[in-house]
Amino acid sequence: MINGQRDLAVDVADRGLNYGDGLFETIQIRDRVPLLWDRHILRMRLGAGRLKIPFDDALEAAYLADFTQLIAASKPANAVLKLLLTRGITQRGYKIEHTLPVTRISRLSSAPDMTRLQREGIAVVLCATQLARQPLLAGIKHLNRLEQVLARSEWDQPDITEGIVCDTAGHVIEGCMSNLFWIKDKVLYTPLLSMSGVEGVVRNLLLALCKCDGLLEIREGFYVKQALLNADEIFLSNSIFDILPVISIQADYSEESANFTPVDFTLGPYTKALQQLLQQHYLKEASV
Amino acid sequence: MINGQRDLAVDVADRGLNYGDGLFETIQIRDRVPLLWDRHILRMRLGAGRLKIPFDDALEAAYLADFTQLIAASKPANAVLKLLLTRGITQRGYKIEHTLPVTRISRLSSAPDMTRLQREGIAVVLCATQLARQPLLAGIKHLNRLEQVLARSEWDQPDITEGIVCDTAGHVIEGCMSNLFWIKDKVLYTPLLSMSGVEGVVRNLLLALCKCDGLLEIREGFYVKQALLNADEIFLSNSIFDILPVISIQADYSEESANFTPVDFTLGPYTKALQQLLQQHYLKEASV
Repeated sequence: MINGQRDLAVDVADRGLNYGDGLFETIQIRDRVPLLWDRHILRMRLGAGRLKIPFDDALEAAYLADFTQLIAASKPANAVLKLLLTRGITQRGYKIEHTLPVTRISRLSSAPDMTRLQREGIAVVLCATQLARQPLLAGIKHLNRLEQVLARSEWDQPDITEGIVCDTAGHVIEGCMSNLFWIKDKVLYTPLLSMSGVEGVVRNLLLALCKCDGLLEIREGFYVKQALLNADEIFLSNSIFDILPVISIQADYSEESANFTPVDFTLGPYTKALQQLLQQHYLKEASV
Repeated sequence: MINGQRDLAVDVADRGLNYGDGLFETIQIRDRVPLLWDRHILRMRLGAGRLKIPFDDALEAAYLADFTQLIAASKPANAVLKLLLTRGITQRGYKIEHTLPVTRISRLSSAPDMTRLQREGIAVVLCATQLARQPLLAGIKHLNRLEQVLARSEWDQPDITEGIVCDTAGHVIEGCMSNLFWIKDKVLYTPLLSMSGVEGVVRNLLLALCKCDGLLEIREGFYVKQALLNADEIFLSNSIFDILPVISIQADYSEESANFTPVDFTLGPYTKALQQLLQQHYLKEASV
């Protein structure tokens, strides 16, 4: 749906296409209910503030109305909702017209079944592509995603689910489509996303749940690759697959030499405990 | 025109919209002829190589056929042709399908009259927005343009034509929509664009013409703002306005204090000579 109309096409002059001038969210729909709706909308609002795109309550209501209409027409109860927001249509030039109506896009598509991977864990690679350090765009889920496209193009093996990327200063940051956590000596580590990366909705929720529960001490900072390789447990999070344990790092494409020996990890108790915490939170949210 | 058809809308699943996964060119059309066509197509090819988007001779021929059809239907003899190339349409996820047909877009629009500004020069500001350093994307004209949108949003005064941006390491790099040159003691300086910025077609042509002609010694490198402020002459280049002399730097939004005193520059002999060299090149090219 585009601006509330059933449509499959956007104007060729839309700034989303021409400049990546906008934001998006990817929301898990379970039993016809969008998970973490408020958190997704909040992140979009924060991103809109950063990019100076207007975002008012009427816009949130309009996205919700889009979803209600889309899910009513949908057979599967589990799905993925993608929201896109662009600054709108201008004829040429980077200049912003502040009175411009935004473009609102809502798409519902089928959900991949992630249960086996959630249970058994995944294999990943370390990518050679490095993320630029840009505090103006770090954290938000904007439409300038060429770095992710390049990183994702580094592997083709179907048994590799995700690639982990570092920034240009050599810190591990995130997966191509997910956030990164690891556990070492009862401390939960996750990269600080003030210079690059996307602050995932599930990532921030996990940090909050972990703080509440007192399960693990939390450290957010800039860490080198070796810290990850020395971890006791590693997992990735995003809004569609929740938490995927990493059971193996198969290759490091950033090294000139082909000498990298695959490293295996156990699917450990803390990762399982966090998976449970998250599912309990979903149940609690659904019962409100 | 989209993929050879008269159309104004692109598929909502196009990767250009969803990830900025593509490239563009903006070409000056003078007397129904595209200026520097070969150089624009060459830059697009280089960009496509960097992004692993297929670009063959048939694609160039298709863009040329688009143009022929568009200009035949156009009343004005002077115009602006915008070419867009995206990786095409995929349903979800960053992964590239290598057999994917690309999306080819050609748009013809009216040309702004730049003759007065070319003759009299322009006022500019120094922007606070800094460009990230990303060698993987530097130089090419890709669709991830949020940094330019943010920089352009810093000023609204109609008498300010352009804003100059630095990178996160404090080097002057370019204008929001143009390349930057200055002259000091008979040397032509221009920022090195290996870490950020777009290598303009007119920029590279000017360097080649200047080398041929021997008019000025050329230095390409990383320079701080002060080097620019100490210049004898400053000018900007792009494919639409060719060369615009800078006659004043009005403000520096990157400074906390409001103490910046506007700096004026003369519209000097070297800038005029380069304007002439470029126009002579266009005439020579047209007569071939």
